[in-house]
Amino acid sequence: MSTLMATEIGEQPDALRRTFTDLLPLRGELRRLAGDRRDVLIVARGSSDNAAVYGRYLLEVHAHHGAALAAPSLATHYGVERDLSDTLVVSISQSGETTEIVAAQAWAATQGARTVAITNGADSALAAGADLALVTPAGPERAVPATKSYTSQLAAIAVIADALGPAASSLEPAMARVPDEVAALIERRAGVDAAVDALASSPATLVSGRGIVYGTALEVALKLEETCLEPVRGLSYADLRHGPIAIVGERSVCVLVAAVDGPMLPGMTELAAQLSSLGSRTVGIGGDAGFQAACDVVVPGPDLPEALAPLGLIVPAQLIVEALARRLGLDPDAPRGLSKITETDRNVTG
Amino acid sequence: MSTLMATEIGEQPDALRRTFTDLLPLRGELRRLAGDRRDVLIVARGSSDNAAVYGRYLLEVHAHHGAALAAPSLATHYGVERDLSDTLVVSISQSGETTEIVAAQAWAATQGARTVAITNGADSALAAGADLALVTPAGPERAVPATKSYTSQLAAIAVIADALGPAASSLEPAMARVPDEVAALIERRAGVDAAVDALASSPATLVSGRGIVYGTALEVALKLEETCLEPVRGLSYADLRHGPIAIVGERSVCVLVAAVDGPMLPGMTELAAQLSSLGSRTVGIGGDAGFQAACDVVVPGPDLPEALAPLGLIVPAQLIVEALARRLGLDPDAPRGLSKITETDRNVTG
Repeated sequence: MSTLMATEIGEQPDALRRTFTDLLPLRGELRRLAGDRRDVLIVARGSSDNAAVYGRYLLEVHAHHGAALAAPSLATHYGVERDLSDTLVVSISQSGETTEIVAAQAWAATQGARTVAITNGADSALAAGADLALVTPAGPERAVPATKSYTSQLAAIAVIADALGPAASSLEPAMARVPDEVAALIERRAGVDAAVDALASSPATLVSGRGIVYGTALEVALKLEETCLEPVRGLSYADLRHGPIAIVGERSVCVLVAAVDGPMLPGMTELAAQLSSLGSRTVGIGGDAGFQAACDVVVPGPDLPEALAPLGLIVPAQLIVEALARRLGLDPDAPRGLSKITETDRNVTG
Repeated sequence: MSTLMATEIGEQPDALRRTFTDLLPLRGELRRLAGDRRDVLIVARGSSDNAAVYGRYLLEVHAHHGAALAAPSLATHYGVERDLSDTLVVSISQSGETTEIVAAQAWAATQGARTVAITNGADSALAAGADLALVTPAGPERAVPATKSYTSQLAAIAVIADALGPAASSLEPAMARVPDEVAALIERRAGVDAAVDALASSPATLVSGRGIVYGTALEVALKLEETCLEPVRGLSYADLRHGPIAIVGERSVCVLVAAVDGPMLPGMTELAAQLSSLGSRTVGIGGDAGFQAACDVVVPGPDLPEALAPLGLIVPAQLIVEALARRLGLDPDAPRGLSKITETDRNVTG
């Protein structure tokens, strides 16, 4: 019997197609709302926060806006005053009901921000409170680990970056290829079983990526950790080399995530070779032929430019996590201790 | 024979005293340099990045400036253009020679930023390239794990926040108490041995704190990981509850860090109780009597307000890390695979 998580992984090509169809027509409204505001502040938590990390890089690199992640506690606990009259605030929550995210969005509006919500909850408090709601038509997500809601969030972020970025280098042609690339990755499952074999016996797992793909590495680590119940670090390769590489050795497996192009690829390929020289096994998701040659286990990624690669790179990782959980005798649909709508703090009222 | 790390932990009261003496007189110059710039962008990596997380919160909460952490790769790899004419950029590097930090500071200046360097290297490239160098007189640091250079960085950050914040609520009176509080923590070593006992047999360690103390939790996790060679996650309690709490169970030990006051204390106390109910042992560093009552192992912290608590809270954690490494048969002065000046990327040229 298929798990809910496997079913929802398989629904992603259609969910992505619907998301682009629904949201691309809103680019004009997004441009009007942003006006000449220079900065974007992204409010999120959990998997949505990993989507936000993608947004932060994409908005800087492609859309040439200053972009940063908010610390929700500055709004909910410290009640700071801040001039956000030059800022577009983007809040991301699958359910649209996470109290602290709804509260942080309301706070941002009182500080002068224009607000955009990305949510799978059309009737949610987050959508209702935003100047513009980008509702992802991913459909109800029943497995606790976010899959189709996460990739739909990435698509919504790409739409915002495309709206605010230069028309001459629109992401739209590449967006049109995303659903089919994702469908092919799901159908082929290339390298998934070999990666599960490597990870099932790993006592220490690290995940690394950098730049536009850094958020993907964080999401792979979070999914491995919450679904397979082992502590897993997600690190940029710069942070990895700056300390945690001390723990890499013959007992460890390092999952490396890379796009097929872009300025991070040489460094990621070099990192794969370095980790091998330290005795670690490496599982490479994505990358080009040179990157794959430097990794022990090869998991092909999508043929998408770096700017959109995260929409496809997470998919084989989802397949790995789902299969690894079953291999370990765990239920990928309902990890211990987690529920679908997270209240991070009982002291916060909306 | 005492380790270098233990010696340098012990030098912190004097290093902090000298840092405040040298840097507090520069507050006027800091104010002139910042002018009416609204935003602060902090550039750092590794332990310095954990200091930067403290700076981000303190500048927002105390100094009422927008504050964010830079992603150095946006400068070094993507070459983004960004208008920083409304921004003060603070770069932090112990050595002042980490190539990507020096390069990111130079990039910021070309984008219109005013630049402040925090470094222990008086003659370093980072100090030479900054509009204003805050040189921390911590003296040469010979152990690889940063201790006195880290707390001196925190002191320099507090000086910046005090310079840019309201004169009516100056941090200076509390700063004057920091060296003696740190000296008392080092002399008493209260709770350190019990914490080492708990952690020595822990197969899965998590560290959590939030808000102004969040950077301390990240630094405790990094130190445990790089010095004691086990993967350790540092998480805000909001992030912890949003997924990774799934892995908390009878095998895990959670280190919780809290100030003696402030808006995060109720939530941290509640988290300690929740983690206990899941079967985890808890080591509580700092907090008040209620927090300590909720933790299994109590490690008293400094009597400092939340805004300055990180300067003291890290100290018992350093004592724990140093003793734990020795207990595990490891050399705390020279963790495997690390060197004092880190080149994160061989592809970057200054």
